[in-house]
Amino acid sequence: MDPAQTTILRHLLLTQETAALGTLHEGQPFVSMVPFAMLPGATGFVIHVSQLASHTQDMLLNPDVSLLVMALRVPGVPAQATARITAQGQALPCPEADQRHAEARSVYLARFPDSEPMFGFADFSLFVIRPTSIRFVGGFAQARTLSPAAFAEVLKS
Amino acid sequence: MDPAQTTILRHLLLTQETAALGTLHEGQPFVSMVPFAMLPGATGFVIHVSQLASHTQDMLLNPDVSLLVMALRVPGVPAQATARITAQGQALPCPEADQRHAEARSVYLARFPDSEPMFGFADFSLFVIRPTSIRFVGGFAQARTLSPAAFAEVLKS
Repeated sequence: MDPAQTTILRHLLLTQETAALGTLHEGQPFVSMVPFAMLPGATGFVIHVSQLASHTQDMLLNPDVSLLVMALRVPGVPAQATARITAQGQALPCPEADQRHAEARSVYLARFPDSEPMFGFADFSLFVIRPTSIRFVGGFAQARTLSPAAFAEVLKS
Repeated sequence: MDPAQTTILRHLLLTQETAALGTLHEGQPFVSMVPFAMLPGATGFVIHVSQLASHTQDMLLNPDVSLLVMALRVPGVPAQATARITAQGQALPCPEADQRHAEARSVYLARFPDSEPMFGFADFSLFVIRPTSIRFVGGFAQARTLSPAAFAEVLKS
């Protein structure tokens, strides 16, 4: 990663607050929108989801997920060159008893303060997606695959 | 669909030019970005992809896909209320010999004129995603499932 790519990746994750979550639904891919926050050290993506939602049931049956974060279109830049990352990983529940619950809740609410009332709803719960591999496309011919460790290193502030 | 929801759905598909494509990759969901255009009558989503890309190989092995189109965040509106659709469907190649190729190419290039040179690349080809079911979320508690016919009716100009 050169400095320009590092800047693009950091900016992408700092500015985009919603991601496309791919889950396995009855054997087929299913993509839905999720607001997300990052755990400190970029070790995981935190989402807060309803038990009533398909993606939540999907994740409980099969933790393999894919999370895409896309930058906004830049006027004058071809759509194909839009910066994005796809993280492949495992989504696991992060209940109140989990030692990382407080931290996950904290980063999520720092980003989405409006969501606080939803933490009082019995059907909403936190999941943490631990990436196993990250594909970053910073523009035309600017694709690379990052390990979780390399990803964390790039995002280190 | 009330008139307000119809307006939101039309605006979403008119203004957003990139989608999150979910494919089945070695048994796991995989989400990647694709620029897309709509066929006339909203009968399908047109994408132009490289044979070198994972999602293209995935679609050739298994046509079941999921396509998410998300609206931009609106300042002051909670992330969870962002309008979006998820289309479940089948992605099939649309080669030059296909009777719909010219139309698919035409709508794609009308939206992405910069892509014309890529139609000269041997490894790029058109796919059409025919929706079988559309999930539309227009805001909080504004979710509904549309059949392809109902979807087409809403988008009829």
